[in-house]
Amino acid sequence: MANESWISDYSPSSDFSLANIPFGIISSPDNHTPRPAIAIGDFALDLETWLTSTTEENVAEVFQGVDVGHLKLALSQATLNAFAALGRPVHRSVRKGLQDLLCQDTPFPQLLKDNEGVRTKALKRLSEVTMHLPMWISDYTDFYAGYHHAWAVGVMFRGPENALQPNYMHLPVGYHGRASSIVVDGTPIRRPVGQILLDPKAEPKQPVTGPTRKLDIELEVGCFISKPNEMGESVDVKRAEEYIFGYVLLNDWSARDIQAWEYVPLGPFNGKNFGTTISAWVVLADALEPFRVKSDIENKIELQGYLQEEGEKVVFDIKLEVDLTTSDGSTTTIGRTSSKYLMWSFPQMIAHHTLGGCPMRTGDLLGSGTISGPGGVEERGSLLEMTENGKKEVLLAGMNARTFLKDGDSVTLRGFCADNGSGLRVGFGRCSGTIYSGVHR
Amino acid sequence: MANESWISDYSPSSDFSLANIPFGIISSPDNHTPRPAIAIGDFALDLETWLTSTTEENVAEVFQGVDVGHLKLALSQATLNAFAALGRPVHRSVRKGLQDLLCQDTPFPQLLKDNEGVRTKALKRLSEVTMHLPMWISDYTDFYAGYHHAWAVGVMFRGPENALQPNYMHLPVGYHGRASSIVVDGTPIRRPVGQILLDPKAEPKQPVTGPTRKLDIELEVGCFISKPNEMGESVDVKRAEEYIFGYVLLNDWSARDIQAWEYVPLGPFNGKNFGTTISAWVVLADALEPFRVKSDIENKIELQGYLQEEGEKVVFDIKLEVDLTTSDGSTTTIGRTSSKYLMWSFPQMIAHHTLGGCPMRTGDLLGSGTISGPGGVEERGSLLEMTENGKKEVLLAGMNARTFLKDGDSVTLRGFCADNGSGLRVGFGRCSGTIYSGVHR
Ligand SMILES: [Ca+2]
Ligand SMILES: [Ca+2]
Ligand SMILES: [Mg+2]
Ligand SMILES: [Mg+2]
Ligand code: NI
Repeated sequence: MANESWISDYSPSSDFSLANIPFGIISSPDNHTPRPAIAIGDFALDLETWLTSTTEENVAEVFQGVDVGHLKLALSQATLNAFAALGRPVHRSVRKGLQDLLCQDTPFPQLLKDNEGVRTKALKRLSEVTMHLPMWISDYTDFYAGYHHAWAVGVMFRGPENALQPNYMHLPVGYHGRASSIVVDGTPIRRPVGQILLDPKAEPKQPVTGPTRKLDIELEVGCFISKPNEMGESVDVKRAEEYIFGYVLLNDWSARDIQAWEYVPLGPFNGKNFGTTISAWVVLADALEPFRVKSDIENKIELQGYLQEEGEKVVFDIKLEVDLTTSDGSTTTIGRTSSKYLMWSFPQMIAHHTLGGCPMRTGDLLGSGTISGPGGVEERGSLLEMTENGKKEVLLAGMNARTFLKDGDSVTLRGFCADNGSGLRVGFGRCSGTIYSGVHR
Repeated sequence: MANESWISDYSPSSDFSLANIPFGIISSPDNHTPRPAIAIGDFALDLETWLTSTTEENVAEVFQGVDVGHLKLALSQATLNAFAALGRPVHRSVRKGLQDLLCQDTPFPQLLKDNEGVRTKALKRLSEVTMHLPMWISDYTDFYAGYHHAWAVGVMFRGPENALQPNYMHLPVGYHGRASSIVVDGTPIRRPVGQILLDPKAEPKQPVTGPTRKLDIELEVGCFISKPNEMGESVDVKRAEEYIFGYVLLNDWSARDIQAWEYVPLGPFNGKNFGTTISAWVVLADALEPFRVKSDIENKIELQGYLQEEGEKVVFDIKLEVDLTTSDGSTTTIGRTSSKYLMWSFPQMIAHHTLGGCPMRTGDLLGSGTISGPGGVEERGSLLEMTENGKKEVLLAGMNARTFLKDGDSVTLRGFCADNGSGLRVGFGRCSGTIYSGVHR
């Protein structure tokens, strides 16, 4: 594979470069049925359309070793679950075939590049397609693997002596989230109403019911499961990569005041379940392989055997950014960090999650937990940290300032991996949402 | 509807009386496809078979006001979700029609009672059918509404001064559970492996990985959602009944030692997600209407408006029992209580869950939380309470004794409502599971 594609306006520095080939679910004005596509530069390649415009023999030639019937069936669904379930060797072969089809010196010019009829039908500008949730998600688990976030929040609420709970370095702490409120990039987020304590120190504690005053974000990476495990059977950490379909950006919107009142003793509930946004394009696990790094967090504790991995480079260096756009249209990048600050890898999370026999299903989503860097407020993945729970303001462009989000604010997460040597770049596109008000009752 | 059915060996004191008509998913040796049925006495009526053996005109006569095409489609699925989604008025009419079909003086004798051909095809002995999970469950939420359980557990871990958290009387505390490990009555449950502290008081805390030594049960009632709400739209407590499909018994198997080490600060995870068992037959919401009572728990706190219900009789008096059968075959009833000890109703749970706009989907399951009575150990819904976290033994038949469950133990939950005046009885059948050992890794 060369670095260049014949796609018009293509740049290898696009999020959706030839080195990426992320999968998503599109619909378009001429075809309202949601269907699988990949993104390349500023275009989406409609896979269902391309597959039905190409002979089975030709498809088999492009996707070496893949059962064409199974693939066509999987890529004619309204979610990527069936494709994910085909397994990582198939994803690898399909991604490779699409790179061959799309690269400058493609061996298959007649199948797309030089075939105007098929090209016109199957290639759509990204600006002209509507993105849908890429997977049907049955279970969603949110971990807490961002060390600097856990530390900073711990210091804030319990002081530096007790910042981390005793279990934190021994296991990837996580909790079950709400799957039904996961939405795709661009979906508006309604400010939730909930029970809150206006004066948390007053006794007796008397809640009121109203809109959250502490609407926050959490910058996370999400991981989709491809292969299910049987109930009662755990997944070995050394084989957990086989169970991963791909990755998205994830914003775990959080209402800090609702969460503070409700979460003892069983964990976050309404403070979280009103909405979680993910980016629209699933970056396949193989596309991130060149960007493996050692975690920046050193864990001096001797890990339990089921968490011990073989290599050292178990996390990815995804450069992450948080943009806040106010209703006057001005945008400020308020946070910059990297997924190398995760102290647990997704294989470790999967091994821990299944240790007792919990079954994963295709399409299950794992969130990394909020990712923050070791530096100052500009490296934080939540407003909670940036503002010390509302005590300090974050300054924005145009002399705006925020403690927590206002109605009309938009938050956009961005993420990409880049190798300066090779020029390889793999990005996630955006993960954004705008806040509006007024839950009906 | 009279009290008697023409079904052979029928007794109105059966769990599956004419007053009940619970729905489930069966398969049989002659038809391995899972399909909807109702239970009556010792029989299952295969609804798909009956509907395809009966003319649409006749079906329309039995089920007044129901669209026959929609009903036939809904009742030809492998789960009850499509039927649930038809809404409570349809469930009501279908239950009424089935009671008419099955009662002694049925106005439709030629459609089943006196039609040997259809009877032979559509009626199966319960002992001859296999039961499947009745619903496809995407999200499962477990509440904590059993007051005496919350109190007893609180006293055990924090003393009577701080037994209940400040939020407990103000809102139905709950957390997101794991949907993928919910299984139907009879499914074996593997003892989970997990991280545990052998000596919780030793410093520094050093976990080991091994099988739980504190495998417990939680006696709960589960509630299935029929109608979805839009994300961002909350459900009014006064209309929440319309969103309820029906009820099952639920055993929230719990590994207390895994849970104790992992649950701070984000709640239970691997201590719960290895398995949750529900009874196979969904008792429709309407079947429980005659058994409404006022909650036995008085809440002196002025409730937030969104939790205020209209009537007083907001919970049901379901008599609940826990049987423990050891591997030598001897059975002891170790707990007896009632769902009248729930301090929050399911409509209140639904109103709270959706307050911030969290969407419910058809098939979502809500657990009540462990139900215990105010009395001694014999009224408790968990071994944690019966044994004071393993300090005292529960004596069983045959001079057996338990603190927590051993391999080979079976636990069976039972539940029924009875009206001694009218002789009405509505039961749930059993909710059971047997423990075996050895998670593969
Ligand atoms: Ca989070
Ligand atoms: Ca429970
Ligand atoms: Mg969220
Ligand atoms: Mg459970
Ligand atoms: Ni229709």
